[in-house]
Amino acid sequence: MASQEQTTDPDIYAESGVIRPDFLDQVSAAVSAGDTDQLAELTEPLHESEMGDLIAALEPSERQELVALLGDRFDYSALTHIDDAIRLEIITVLPNEQIALALQELDSDDAVYILEDMDEGEQADILGRIPFTERIRLRRSLDYPEDSAGRRMQADFVAVPPYWNVGQTIDYLRDNADLPERFSQIFVIDPTFRLVGAVDLDRILREQREVRIEDIMRETRHAVPAEMDQEEAAQIFERYDLLSAAVIDENERLVGVLTIDDVVDVIQEEAEEDILALGGVGDEELSDSVIETTRSRFTWLMINLGTAVLASFVIGLFDATIQEMVALAVLMPIVASMGGNAGTQTMTVTVRALATRELDIYNAGRIIRRETLVGLLNGVLFAVVIGIVATLWFWTPGLGVVIAIAMVVNMVCAALAGIFVPLILDRMKVDPAVASSVFVTTVTDVVGFFAFLGLAAVWFGI
Amino acid sequence: MASQEQTTDPDIYAESGVIRPDFLDQVSAAVSAGDTDQLAELTEPLHESEMGDLIAALEPSERQELVALLGDRFDYSALTHIDDAIRLEIITVLPNEQIALALQELDSDDAVYILEDMDEGEQADILGRIPFTERIRLRRSLDYPEDSAGRRMQADFVAVPPYWNVGQTIDYLRDNADLPERFSQIFVIDPTFRLVGAVDLDRILREQREVRIEDIMRETRHAVPAEMDQEEAAQIFERYDLLSAAVIDENERLVGVLTIDDVVDVIQEEAEEDILALGGVGDEELSDSVIETTRSRFTWLMINLGTAVLASFVIGLFDATIQEMVALAVLMPIVASMGGNAGTQTMTVTVRALATRELDIYNAGRIIRRETLVGLLNGVLFAVVIGIVATLWFWTPGLGVVIAIAMVVNMVCAALAGIFVPLILDRMKVDPAVASSVFVTTVTDVVGFFAFLGLAAVWFGI
Repeated sequence: MASQEQTTDPDIYAESGVIRPDFLDQVSAAVSAGDTDQLAELTEPLHESEMGDLIAALEPSERQELVALLGDRFDYSALTHIDDAIRLEIITVLPNEQIALALQELDSDDAVYILEDMDEGEQADILGRIPFTERIRLRRSLDYPEDSAGRRMQADFVAVPPYWNVGQTIDYLRDNADLPERFSQIFVIDPTFRLVGAVDLDRILREQREVRIEDIMRETRHAVPAEMDQEEAAQIFERYDLLSAAVIDENERLVGVLTIDDVVDVIQEEAEEDILALGGVGDEELSDSVIETTRSRFTWLMINLGTAVLASFVIGLFDATIQEMVALAVLMPIVASMGGNAGTQTMTVTVRALATRELDIYNAGRIIRRETLVGLLNGVLFAVVIGIVATLWFWTPGLGVVIAIAMVVNMVCAALAGIFVPLILDRMKVDPAVASSVFVTTVTDVVGFFAFLGLAAVWFGI
Repeated sequence: MASQEQTTDPDIYAESGVIRPDFLDQVSAAVSAGDTDQLAELTEPLHESEMGDLIAALEPSERQELVALLGDRFDYSALTHIDDAIRLEIITVLPNEQIALALQELDSDDAVYILEDMDEGEQADILGRIPFTERIRLRRSLDYPEDSAGRRMQADFVAVPPYWNVGQTIDYLRDNADLPERFSQIFVIDPTFRLVGAVDLDRILREQREVRIEDIMRETRHAVPAEMDQEEAAQIFERYDLLSAAVIDENERLVGVLTIDDVVDVIQEEAEEDILALGGVGDEELSDSVIETTRSRFTWLMINLGTAVLASFVIGLFDATIQEMVALAVLMPIVASMGGNAGTQTMTVTVRALATRELDIYNAGRIIRRETLVGLLNGVLFAVVIGIVATLWFWTPGLGVVIAIAMVVNMVCAALAGIFVPLILDRMKVDPAVASSVFVTTVTDVVGFFAFLGLAAVWFGI
């Protein structure tokens, strides 16, 4: 998906970042009038990502109509810039022959991106209509596991033997018409296609023609195995500030190149997944239907109902105490809620630090001590505040003391749960972003209600 | 911070991603023995980011000792790969003269990165020790607002006039020793330094020597104004899959180049900020002290205390009802908790969709309808479940009906709050990630308690 800065003259976006309504209206009008020429004139200057935004902003029926009207003037790489659901909606109504033709025009990574979500029968049919060499290349990418580097790589690259010199290399680039659309480094390979090294283009341009490639190449220590998970590959890119990396197969033969623009998408998706998981939302998209969304949210809410009922059981243990002193029922959610929030704070920091690998065995001890102390300190501060509030409100001697002690206890437990739950889940190879918050709130609810009501029962002897 | 794949042979990381303990021990031993040669031998093969990880894993006193021992063999770019707090801890004990010498070795963006966190006096003193040309360049970057493109840009670049040809350009690159460490495009400028266009290096290499630069350059439509916020610049990079972009001043003169590796950091920071904000955590770092952390978390907890007390007031309105029927106190947290979770789900999706600009005026109506229906559907489903549970548990006719109705009401309100709160905050130019969750939980708590207790009061006539 790498491309550079050439795009449209007129800015199709309004200041708020959405497609300008008047531009959208023009496109809609052209679509409903079936005016292909007008439509082409409006859309041809657009960058593929602008075209993607435009398609997403149209009504579903207009989207299909637009693609049908533009025919082979439609740039299919725009489809890599829209939601899976919208892409499939467009793809499924197109004849396979047309898709096959279109895919041949795309970079191999974009073609794979579009192919990988289709059902197998359709995918096989489309691949069957693509010429042999290109088909083999796409098949090979698709054979790598989902979300692997092999799926994301671009299969076109420039490779030269180590004994060539700079002059030969430049002449080869000048005379060869079949180069990738864009490239930023030249790979060096031996006769069996095994990767020997790489040279950045700026290095080639600095050197005299007679300098040999093997003397200016660098060894590629960070070649990415094609089976490697894209997330792990992204971490290598981040750690070493790479712009591109060679992708090699199990025999260390060069099979493609992974570029940073694909990795940026991966980094974004990973952060996105963490945010949604922490909010109790699974893998959903904005274009999902009501039923899909309800189903995907249901599981999380069901688990939460279980923990809420558990907390209610704890309250139920003290129903006699509450009946004696109804102020306890009024105040009890405060202790639980403060614990829940403090626990969520610690948990969020821990989950994030684990994801970015900032939290490790070298600083875990310090972080656990810090979080416990922070819980204790904030616990004491809020114990004082709520103790005064409760005393003034209900004017019951002892109630302020009880809620204050319960607050300290729950805030410290919240801190401990907030740090240990994600750490333990991570050790057990469970994604802490997904599962932490239910355990943390269970702890803070149960401890909060039990500490407050239990202490009250003891203190007031009821 | 752009560099490429050349790094160390031995893998210094254990499988879990942390620095190998035995390697760390070797480094520690060399530091405490004051064995500079051994230390240099261990650390010289390291990539700057590996060196950063190593420094972070050491004890504070060892960090300073390591930098002191290595002296001018220490690569200061490693400091751009560690937490602000650790960096400042190291920098403050170093003599300014030494820092000034070190900064001259760095790329200008790395130097600015280290300078910008210092207090003004120290910054001025260090700048005063740097030679004029380089000082002016750093000053100019530092004069741009914090978090602007001007702060993040690299001030070294290659620029040629449009009337040169490919041959002249290559000869210039071959003969000029003072080129940036790395570059991926050549800018085209007029005699007043105004930006005219750019040529990617692969384009230069494909063309014959006599081809004129102006015939192969592309207009740079996505030049970034130096004052632009880095987040906005990152969005341009993402939208157009840029690898680098020209940075221009208010007179459209070329002043630097922004590269994707810096933008990746920005994208990560922004996602990070959203995750932490949604978890009720402000701008904190893992290296912050107990006091700093307690203070930064306190505000959020104080606000939450306010909303918890508000919810308690609502409960207090029904103290007579609760005294009559203590089962209400046992069950009431369930309704509030389910609403809170459902509201958080909707809010998380909304906040994220706003941040990625997926949610806009074209689909807001559909999303609002969808979320309301999802809330209604899940509300009905959980109303049935909890209605049965409550009836079986307390065997009180009517209690199941009351909690079921309250559940539907609260789940629908949760959905509405989850979508409208972030939308309204966004419209009011308040960051929805920071402020949404307090409003949403206030709504779900207040509505949850009020609906359940109020309905019970009416139904049972108490």
